[in-house]
Amino acid sequence: MSTRTEIATLGEFGLIDHLTRNNETRHASTILSVGDDAAVLDHFGKQVVVTTDLLIEGVHFDLVYTPLHHLGFKSVVVNLSDVYAMNAIPAQITVSVGISNRFSVEAMEEFYEGVYAACEQYNVDLVGGDTTTSNKGFIISVTAIGEVTPDQFVTRSGAGKGDLICVSGDLGAAYLGLLLMEREKKIFLESPSVQPDLESQGYILKRLLKPRARKDIIEFFEREGVVPTSMMDISDGLSSDILHVCKASNMGCLLYEDKLPVAEDSGGEDYELLFTIKQEDYEKIVLNEQISVIGYITESSEGKQIITRSGNKHEITAQGWNPLK
Amino acid sequence: MSTRTEIATLGEFGLIDHLTRNNETRHASTILSVGDDAAVLDHFGKQVVVTTDLLIEGVHFDLVYTPLHHLGFKSVVVNLSDVYAMNAIPAQITVSVGISNRFSVEAMEEFYEGVYAACEQYNVDLVGGDTTTSNKGFIISVTAIGEVTPDQFVTRSGAGKGDLICVSGDLGAAYLGLLLMEREKKIFLESPSVQPDLESQGYILKRLLKPRARKDIIEFFEREGVVPTSMMDISDGLSSDILHVCKASNMGCLLYEDKLPVAEDSGGEDYELLFTIKQEDYEKIVLNEQISVIGYITESSEGKQIITRSGNKHEITAQGWNPLK
Repeated sequence: MSTRTEIATLGEFGLIDHLTRNNETRHASTILSVGDDAAVLDHFGKQVVVTTDLLIEGVHFDLVYTPLHHLGFKSVVVNLSDVYAMNAIPAQITVSVGISNRFSVEAMEEFYEGVYAACEQYNVDLVGGDTTTSNKGFIISVTAIGEVTPDQFVTRSGAGKGDLICVSGDLGAAYLGLLLMEREKKIFLESPSVQPDLESQGYILKRLLKPRARKDIIEFFEREGVVPTSMMDISDGLSSDILHVCKASNMGCLLYEDKLPVAEDSGGEDYELLFTIKQEDYEKIVLNEQISVIGYITESSEGKQIITRSGNKHEITAQGWNPLK
Repeated sequence: MSTRTEIATLGEFGLIDHLTRNNETRHASTILSVGDDAAVLDHFGKQVVVTTDLLIEGVHFDLVYTPLHHLGFKSVVVNLSDVYAMNAIPAQITVSVGISNRFSVEAMEEFYEGVYAACEQYNVDLVGGDTTTSNKGFIISVTAIGEVTPDQFVTRSGAGKGDLICVSGDLGAAYLGLLLMEREKKIFLESPSVQPDLESQGYILKRLLKPRARKDIIEFFEREGVVPTSMMDISDGLSSDILHVCKASNMGCLLYEDKLPVAEDSGGEDYELLFTIKQEDYEKIVLNEQISVIGYITESSEGKQIITRSGNKHEITAQGWNPLK
């Protein structure tokens, strides 16, 4: 950035006007967008899904290795992922930011470019938010609103005995990306002249910095007439999240290590979908290369187990069972 | 508080479960509440209003003089005020918090008691949120969702020539309360043994620490068949906020100092409603003692003016025109 404009020169209202001056709306359900006390939405005939996330600098992201454009993009995508995980289609978001005077208008523009890029890619409208001062650090709060055909939403609690446990995409890459960036940051802080060697790591870095939400899987369900019996997005890691589904559904599970679509390790931040389907829906999903069947739901009394490649059965623990150790 | 339970003993999921264990829902439109990737709402036949606020310790509140119960209550109420300001009735909220390890489970319980008290008083459902760590300080993000009869929502931009400008309640008390608390905090920090003399200041303290949102005014409009031509809640102070309405509506205004229902000074945080009505609706509101007519809308070319008690005309400025100086 060659120019630095202090936010104080625009003021809070000026900053909002500036950052939202090119904001477009894409949905007929967006009746009134940014600029009033609230947005007005019309979801006549649909049910509405709402989810929210709070992201704090130093806890959820590190600006040393996170470009603001990517941060804006990711802040939106992680929320949309929760909407898709309800079998819903996101339509609107609000984005609030708390910023210290360390940030310039240009920095906020870069962040909002990422927000708008996600809005365009996932076809959602930015309809509101709050912009305020923080004493220290960057704080982001995103709320996403989606639409679902009445009573077609999918919770974590509907998994039934014999249902097939499935995941989309592959697992673990985002976590590996995080480890890599932490290592490179340490090297950079110790020896700023050393250029990081990230060339060969493009895929896992992209998964960390610019994750995708699995809109395509939800659209596939719609086309094929599949309604999963339970679903969530994998944000804590597969082992932790399958335990959430089992607990909410009051069931057990049996996973197979050799069925896991593991890129490397599974440590969360994958934003893939974990879901269960009835056995009779197997034919509908078997040809989709983006979906892996990794096990099945059992009675609660049978516990939550994984069968390793060597044929041993292990209890799955919340701390994260590591399939590669 | 006699007991201190570290949040680490419950963990993030345990804390959410604990704080929401007695959460009740009040609305048929709340299909699915806290505990999944998202909440599900059914506003069939109504339009939906969405608003969000981000509150940061040290910027928006000071825990030296803000009890956590009151903070929880106020965090919800300021959002509901934005929903009412759209002529809508709030139905659901999400509450996210970022907390450092300075806070105990008991402290968070106290905060949530205030949240639940507001939910009960204003008849809204808590349907979701995010609980996360912060490095420093307390961060609160609240999103409120309301319902409005299709196309009966009221923006800031509909004021027309000759419309009467009205405010609810009285102005300035909350601002005075803030000045008072800042003074007492200074005394307390310098001489901790001195007890603050707040006895005689009950009303303005209550307005600061426990503001109300004007649900009653919106219900009055519904009963009397009044739809304001424009409306917003007064959060920045009357002079700043009337300029927002004039700008959004592309109109001017003329206010009368002797018509202002000023408790003392107007400095914002009143959460009263500022609205305009057509002249023919005057008879419908004149008997409501909670509503004052303070002026009328003029052509934009006539500027934004106030006539003082002494009969002089002044331009209203965004910095806040002080009617008592």
